Amino acid sequence: METTGRHLLCEYHGCDAQILGDPARLEALLQQAAAAAGATVVHSVTHRFAALGVSGVLLLEESHLSIHTWPERGYAAVDFYTCGACQPQRAHQVMLDGLRAERAEVLVVDRGGPEGIRVRPGAQNPNPILK
Amino acid sequence: METTGRHLLCEYHGCDAQILGDPARLEALLQQAAAAAGATVVHSVTHRFAALGVSGVLLLEESHLSIHTWPERGYAAVDFYTCGACQPQRAHQVMLDGLRAERAEVLVVDRGGPEGIRVRPGAQNPNPILK
Repeated sequence: METTGRHLLCEYHGCDAQILGDPARLEALLQQAAAAAGATVVHSVTHRFAALGVSGVLLLEESHLSIHTWPERGYAAVDFYTCGACQPQRAHQVMLDGLRAERAEVLVVDRGGPEGIRVRPGAQNPNPILK
Repeated sequence: METTGRHLLCEYHGCDAQILGDPARLEALLQQAAAAAGATVVHSVTHRFAALGVSGVLLLEESHLSIHTWPERGYAAVDFYTCGACQPQRAHQVMLDGLRAERAEVLVVDRGGPEGIRVRPGAQNPNPILK
């Protein structure tokens, strides 16, 4: 199996607080994002914290997709780590729309390749993507 | 709740193939790593793939800890993403020892802070840490 993977570290700001606090809605969104990226889900876990936020992870055939939310701040931190032929940028677009984010930052990291872990040129911080 | 977090993206090479293929052992190691970092586990999921590798995620009060392994390549990709007062570098040391890695690379990324997502200076790629 090929070890090469692409990891998108995404930060979403100005999101809909109600969506960020709803585990079922977030899980549905993660599933939709995984499907858009062409990934296959093998496990799904979500957890709602007493202090408002939600965490969720989809284990994928191709690695994982995770979210941590802070509804009171309108903020979510999301990771799309996929190996093989997936297109994680499509998952990013689904999350951007689904969370109704006003602003996003994305750091793209190549992992498991012959040159080791690498931040993509042009994806150095900050890398705001305005919707 | 504070959104600021520290994310260690770790790559371990030259690991013990038997350990990398053993879901129970990997889960125990993740739990040990989380404890060393001072994190609290709320959910644990592991999955063994037909094609040898194992994936596992611990959802933490403080975000997550994930692993993806390629036993046939002696390679594991691990993420420690923690908010608050955790010490993820301690989790890294537990994994480095527990996987019997010959070599590791670590990228340290600050997330959720006022300046946005940031790769730590001095932690730019490649950043090999020889055991």
